[in-house]
Amino acid sequence: MTRTMKRVLVIGGCGFIGSHVVDQLRALGYMVRILDRSKERFRDSFSDVEYYFGSFADSYFLDEALVGVDIVIHLASSTVPQTSNLDPGRDVSENLLALITLLDAIVRHRVSKIIYLSSGGTIYGIPNAHCIDETHPLEPIVSYGVVKLASEKYIHLYSRMHGLDYCIIRASNPYGPRQARVGVQGVIGTFLSSLIRVEPIEIWGDGLVTRDFLFVRDLAKLCALACESGSRSIYNGSSSEGHSINDIIAVLSRVTGIEIRPIYKESKPYDVPFIILDNRRARQDFKWEPETSFDQGILETWQWTLSQYGPNSR
Amino acid sequence: MTRTMKRVLVIGGCGFIGSHVVDQLRALGYMVRILDRSKERFRDSFSDVEYYFGSFADSYFLDEALVGVDIVIHLASSTVPQTSNLDPGRDVSENLLALITLLDAIVRHRVSKIIYLSSGGTIYGIPNAHCIDETHPLEPIVSYGVVKLASEKYIHLYSRMHGLDYCIIRASNPYGPRQARVGVQGVIGTFLSSLIRVEPIEIWGDGLVTRDFLFVRDLAKLCALACESGSRSIYNGSSSEGHSINDIIAVLSRVTGIEIRPIYKESKPYDVPFIILDNRRARQDFKWEPETSFDQGILETWQWTLSQYGPNSR
Repeated sequence: MTRTMKRVLVIGGCGFIGSHVVDQLRALGYMVRILDRSKERFRDSFSDVEYYFGSFADSYFLDEALVGVDIVIHLASSTVPQTSNLDPGRDVSENLLALITLLDAIVRHRVSKIIYLSSGGTIYGIPNAHCIDETHPLEPIVSYGVVKLASEKYIHLYSRMHGLDYCIIRASNPYGPRQARVGVQGVIGTFLSSLIRVEPIEIWGDGLVTRDFLFVRDLAKLCALACESGSRSIYNGSSSEGHSINDIIAVLSRVTGIEIRPIYKESKPYDVPFIILDNRRARQDFKWEPETSFDQGILETWQWTLSQYGPNSR
Repeated sequence: MTRTMKRVLVIGGCGFIGSHVVDQLRALGYMVRILDRSKERFRDSFSDVEYYFGSFADSYFLDEALVGVDIVIHLASSTVPQTSNLDPGRDVSENLLALITLLDAIVRHRVSKIIYLSSGGTIYGIPNAHCIDETHPLEPIVSYGVVKLASEKYIHLYSRMHGLDYCIIRASNPYGPRQARVGVQGVIGTFLSSLIRVEPIEIWGDGLVTRDFLFVRDLAKLCALACESGSRSIYNGSSSEGHSINDIIAVLSRVTGIEIRPIYKESKPYDVPFIILDNRRARQDFKWEPETSFDQGILETWQWTLSQYGPNSR
C-alpha cells in the first residue's frame, strides 16, 4: 500500500470544506499537512496533522510548506460569489495571481497532482438545461466564476507544460456542520443561524430560486477520492438534486419542529434562478455517490448548530 | 449624421494594427484620440488626432484620456503568444488587471461601447474541425489565450452589470505594412525582414503548420465597423483561408522574384498544427469581407518593407 505513504497538503484545510477533507484523508491513511491563515474554528488541532499558518499567495512560505508533498488540495479563496463583483481587480490579484504563484511552486517542488475546488454554482452562468453536465458552456456572471474559470485554464496549461496531474471539482452548494454562520457562506447555514437566534428568516425573491446542495462530507469524500483517480480531469461535485429556498424552509420546519414564517424581500440581480449539476461523471469514475439525504444532512447540520450555539451549548 | 461627431479612443493606436484602425476611423469621420506608450514608429503624427502617451494600466492617466470619449477600441497587450508562458503571473498583472482597471474607468466616464481585440489564434486552443466558428470551445494552451479568455468574460460581466455595449473581435494572424520586424510579431513580417537582409529563412517544423492570415487593413476595417454595429458581441476577424508556412514561402518567391531555400528546424511545442477561423458571422452582421487577396497583401507588405529597409530606402 503505497497510498498510505503519500503526503497531502490541504490549502484551506482549517476551513469549512477543508476540515471535512482532512477528516476523509486521515481516515484513508494519508499524511496530512494543512496550510491556512489560522486554526480550525470549531475543533482542536490534530496531533497527527502538520499545520502551516500563513498566506497561500506567499511564494517563500509555499516553498516551506511544499517540502515532501505529493498532492496539493487547493480549497482556499479570499472572495465569495456574492461580493466578488464589488472589486474584480482584487479578486484577480488575490486568487488568480495566487494560484499562478502556487502552480509555479508546485512545479518547483515536483508535486505530482493538484486537486482544485472550482465552482459549479458560478462557472456555468445561466444554465441552458434542467440539469447540466461538465460540457455546458462556461459563461460566469460573477467575478468569482471568471476567476475560477481562468484558474481551471491555468491548471490545464501547467499540466500541459509540466506534466502535472490534476483534478478539478466544480462543487455545487456545500452545507453541513462547521459552516460559519457569517451570512455569505450559504443559505442553509444562514437560515439555521437565524433559527437558533430566534431571528426572522429573510428570503430574497419569491423563494423559487433552486440550487443543488451537497452535504459537505460527501463533497469531502469526493475530494479525497480524487487523490488516487483521474481518468478525466473535470467533475461536477454535486447531488444532481434541486431544492428551492421554499423547499429548504419546509425541510427545516420538519426537522427542527419550528414553525417558520419567512420574510420575502426584493430579489438580488446576481441570482441564477435554477441550477442543478449532473454528477454522473463523478459517480462513474470514482464509484462515488452522495450518501447523505437532504433531510439527513439538514438534521445533522441542525444538531451541530444546536451543539455550538443552542441554549445548552458549552 | 451623428456618427461623425463621435470620439473614439484607440488604446494601442500607434502600434501595427492600431495605426491602420486610426486610418479607417479618420476616413469614416470619427474624432480620434490615441493612448499609447510612444509615437508611431513608421509615420509622423496626424494634426487631427489627439495623442496621450502613457500606460493603459494607470487609472489616473485613463481618467484624463477618457474625458469626452464615446467609444474605446482596446488593442494593446504587453505580451505575445509565443512568450506568454514564460511568466503567466506577469501576463495576468499587466493585461488582465489592466483591463479591469480600464473597465472601471470606462464605467466612471460613461463610455458607451468598448471594442476589444481578442485572439482567434490562441483562445480556441487545438481546433476540433477544419474551420471553426465562434461557438468552438475555448481551450487555450498559452497564457496569452487564457488572459484573452478571462478578458472577454470580464467585458461581458461589466456589460451585464453596467449596461456597457461591447464588441469582441477574435483576430486571426494579421500581417501587412508597419508590422515591426522584431521576430515575435508574425511569420510573414519575419520572413520579409530576412529576405531584405539577405538572411536565410528559418522554419520550425516541416512547414505544414497552417494559419489563417488576414491583411491588416481588412482587420482594421472590421474594428472601425464595429463602432456602429453590434447585433452580436463576439466575432472572428479572419480570412477563413488557410495558408501553410510552405505556401507563404511559395507566394513570397513569386511576389519578390527571389528564390527561397528555407532552413527547416525542430518544431516548437506550442504550435497548433492547423487553424482556420470561420468569418461568416462578421460577413453577415457587418456587410464586411476581406478585400485583399493573399498575393496582393504579400505584395503590398513587400513593397512597404522595400521602402523602409530596402537598398533604396532613405
